[in-house]
Amino acid sequence: MRFIDKLRSRWRSSGSMLCVGLDPDQSRLPGGLARETDGIEQFCRQIVDATAEFACAFKPQIAYFASAGAEAQLEAVIAHIKTRYPDIPVVLDAKRGDIGSTAAHYATEAFGRYGADAVTINPYMGTDSVEPYLEWEDRGVFVLCRTSNPGGDDFQALNVAQRDDPTAHKPLYRSVATLAGQRWNKQEQVGLVVGATYPDELAEIRRLAPTMPLLVPGIGAQGGDIKATVAAGLDNDGHGMLINSSRAIIYAGQDAGFAQAAARAAAATNTAINEARNQR
Amino acid sequence: MRFIDKLRSRWRSSGSMLCVGLDPDQSRLPGGLARETDGIEQFCRQIVDATAEFACAFKPQIAYFASAGAEAQLEAVIAHIKTRYPDIPVVLDAKRGDIGSTAAHYATEAFGRYGADAVTINPYMGTDSVEPYLEWEDRGVFVLCRTSNPGGDDFQALNVAQRDDPTAHKPLYRSVATLAGQRWNKQEQVGLVVGATYPDELAEIRRLAPTMPLLVPGIGAQGGDIKATVAAGLDNDGHGMLINSSRAIIYAGQDAGFAQAAARAAAATNTAINEARNQR
Repeated sequence: MRFIDKLRSRWRSSGSMLCVGLDPDQSRLPGGLARETDGIEQFCRQIVDATAEFACAFKPQIAYFASAGAEAQLEAVIAHIKTRYPDIPVVLDAKRGDIGSTAAHYATEAFGRYGADAVTINPYMGTDSVEPYLEWEDRGVFVLCRTSNPGGDDFQALNVAQRDDPTAHKPLYRSVATLAGQRWNKQEQVGLVVGATYPDELAEIRRLAPTMPLLVPGIGAQGGDIKATVAAGLDNDGHGMLINSSRAIIYAGQDAGFAQAAARAAAATNTAINEARNQR
Repeated sequence: MRFIDKLRSRWRSSGSMLCVGLDPDQSRLPGGLARETDGIEQFCRQIVDATAEFACAFKPQIAYFASAGAEAQLEAVIAHIKTRYPDIPVVLDAKRGDIGSTAAHYATEAFGRYGADAVTINPYMGTDSVEPYLEWEDRGVFVLCRTSNPGGDDFQALNVAQRDDPTAHKPLYRSVATLAGQRWNKQEQVGLVVGATYPDELAEIRRLAPTMPLLVPGIGAQGGDIKATVAAGLDNDGHGMLINSSRAIIYAGQDAGFAQAAARAAAATNTAINEARNQR
């Protein structure tokens, strides 16, 4: 099944647009878990089991595994999701970007080795840095477009002169959205990463890309507003977003009840998203 | 010792600006080596030993190790370089880029886990995606600026309106070079990645960044010209570049003599670089 079909099916069956981000920082693991790579795996498995019913997707962040030398544990966590929750897509957050011959190896890493349904990638190196991922026809990519961090302004918000009219300008992130939509998304394999901290720009990108899935980080620990995000980013089917929360869910509790606390946080976030959708 | 001092010392002691790229594709390992992760490690060790005398730096490309599940072998290869050739800097080619909290984990991956002296990073997410690397005071980063691949034009060459004069334009890669030089390079930890396939732009970036080290891929398999590259990118000390060659060196031979073939290719490339320098 294609990634986009798996995602749309999950949106419908779960009624959720919440993406649960798995950022397992060894220094923040709850008491009772080993502060070692096994602890990372146990932590993630329990978070997955506790939050799956509220999630449209899981998004493991590979940096947290790589810094700890926990690649085998990342493989195991994703295998656990795919075995026990085969209808929930896994988006590997890796933000890779390199020339074609190297990108082919990153695609193998994400899709072949880890079995992810989709991967986040960086557009700075252009079309040939994206194409190797698209050769995996049943998988998807989310292209960084407008990110939610303070430095997101440094380049993404720069005004780019338009080729057909050099006196007209639009921000760089719109050039990224346009190229991703027009040139890279021919087989519905491409989504965009758009931060929740800029709802006006999220709405602008939704108008440019009416049917592309948007991966939206920035609610929760990063401060984005759920109501504004939902109002800005819904597609015409009333879905269209993977609204990600990582730290606010997975570190909701710090003691032995951490999984139940994560379940409560995921349920509450999912409810808040759906209330915002129903009010619209 | 700071990365920049280690690099300058190596430039002087070796008389080389050749960076040997380690892109160990399992499907291209020479006959006689296992087509498994152990083969990757043996291949890289032998390439390193054969080419070290001609190299100012080694640049392992992490994607080739990650696609094969060969992180332990990457650790071993870098440890081998640091043990046997402690004066040769190791640049981990990873092109990471993420928000600050995640970037801190990528910095730990590159510098803590793998022990690299420098790492390549992607500027698209801006200042806070760079700062965590700079906290490792004795390490460096190479920021993607103008890349040598065909898609490098898609965004890097877009014309950006200048804030002080919106009718004036300059390409995006110049904005990256300027911000990297002015805001990120306060402690001489920052270099730029500039492809050899655009010597005019390499010369332009050298004028903008007269003392920053430039990591220059694109000679050899990618077609960049050595004379034009050297003429464009030298600094005032007659160094200033890590001119990378990967495939043209490491796959120079395919049989049991692959290491000797790599040594000859590295020696010839180094000689060509130095002849171009002397002609200038």
